[in-house]
Amino acid sequence: MVLVSPRNPLNIGAAARAMANFGLRRLSVVAPFEPNWREARSAIGAPELLATAVESATLAEAVADCTLVVGTGTLTYRKPEQPVVPLPDLAPQVRRELVSGGRVALVFGSEKHGLTREDLSYCHLLVEIPTDPLQPSMNLGQAVAVCLYELIRSAVSAPETPPATQATSITSAAASGRLDLLAGVIEETMQAAGYSPHTMQPANRHDLRLLLRRLSLSAHDTRRILGLFRRILWRLNHLER
Amino acid sequence: MVLVSPRNPLNIGAAARAMANFGLRRLSVVAPFEPNWREARSAIGAPELLATAVESATLAEAVADCTLVVGTGTLTYRKPEQPVVPLPDLAPQVRRELVSGGRVALVFGSEKHGLTREDLSYCHLLVEIPTDPLQPSMNLGQAVAVCLYELIRSAVSAPETPPATQATSITSAAASGRLDLLAGVIEETMQAAGYSPHTMQPANRHDLRLLLRRLSLSAHDTRRILGLFRRILWRLNHLER
Repeated sequence: MVLVSPRNPLNIGAAARAMANFGLRRLSVVAPFEPNWREARSAIGAPELLATAVESATLAEAVADCTLVVGTGTLTYRKPEQPVVPLPDLAPQVRRELVSGGRVALVFGSEKHGLTREDLSYCHLLVEIPTDPLQPSMNLGQAVAVCLYELIRSAVSAPETPPATQATSITSAAASGRLDLLAGVIEETMQAAGYSPHTMQPANRHDLRLLLRRLSLSAHDTRRILGLFRRILWRLNHLER
Repeated sequence: MVLVSPRNPLNIGAAARAMANFGLRRLSVVAPFEPNWREARSAIGAPELLATAVESATLAEAVADCTLVVGTGTLTYRKPEQPVVPLPDLAPQVRRELVSGGRVALVFGSEKHGLTREDLSYCHLLVEIPTDPLQPSMNLGQAVAVCLYELIRSAVSAPETPPATQATSITSAAASGRLDLLAGVIEETMQAAGYSPHTMQPANRHDLRLLLRRLSLSAHDTRRILGLFRRILWRLNHLER
């Protein structure tokens, strides 16, 4: 689970407690506000997983080894750029990913603004909690509890699935960091091919990131495409000299 | 929804907010600690349903018009006296009750002790959230959010059900208050029949309450049994004179 820029120590504590309640252990925190983060970690009765939580500067870094990145938040006022899945339908997708050896990240934004457009561009899909349109916005700790319950719920009632293997099969999805690497090589290639750096604006980067996630590339395909672009890039650089 | 003796104003606020998130409006509060209850109601941004919440002195009073009373809490250290339903399986029972015109109460105990044995004796069944045995106890606001999500979840994904009619059909369940009335008349009858008041101890009352709920009496049956005992009682009192 990933918390991006959480502010309120009570909310951080509540999110961690929900994780402990539902048997999750791995928490990543992106760019926390340091004093509050310290306070949450040192609170009396704080779950142990807060002590072992990993801090990252960026969401890209936090989800680099994940093959399915799921964003959360209220979508009422936004037009999302990736598929939106109602929370009750999320579990099968997550289970499929885990069974095939993938890693799944569930990402929560800050209490005030939720996930930014930039954050969302690292997400393969968005999940929506079916709240009342009159009061759609949930408290962070409660949203975490509800999402984790839904994932555990179906694990409890689902038939036994074989344990996830760490071996990367030919169909397993590409990790987020690999897609970022690929995006970087593609960008370099475009520049080497004569696209001016000016046209490679943040907006394009954003679209490229979304495109690569929309393709649902397997790890195997990603490796091949990366190889292809590296070869092209090498050739382009070689020609230029 | 019923909160029994809630203590922390933040938890009361969180529970109310979860109700608003999932479109619920009717809150009952039993024997709240007055200063904290006032504080929760007057908090900035408090959901309106806190202002319209009903206060009761006892749980019996709060659920008197309910036909299905569902208790919540951690059952790890208790041997419950009524059926325990895993939360993922609760929705169909609740829906059935509502469709047949019944009223359902979801009851949460205080943060510290949960529901007492006395409270639980008013419950037809208990619901269990599938938490990790290592950290089973959930924060009140989060437990409320998870339970309400589960009930809404299935309403969202379930096929359309006809609107509940208020008319009491022959199969509709007896309200909690009617069962209490019946228990009172049975107790009176037993005393009139020569049971010494000494034997009618709290423990017996407790067992009688549980027994009447275990029988799943319909409103119609309850009325008939009540009539029967009233007649017996009248006869006994008449003979005694």
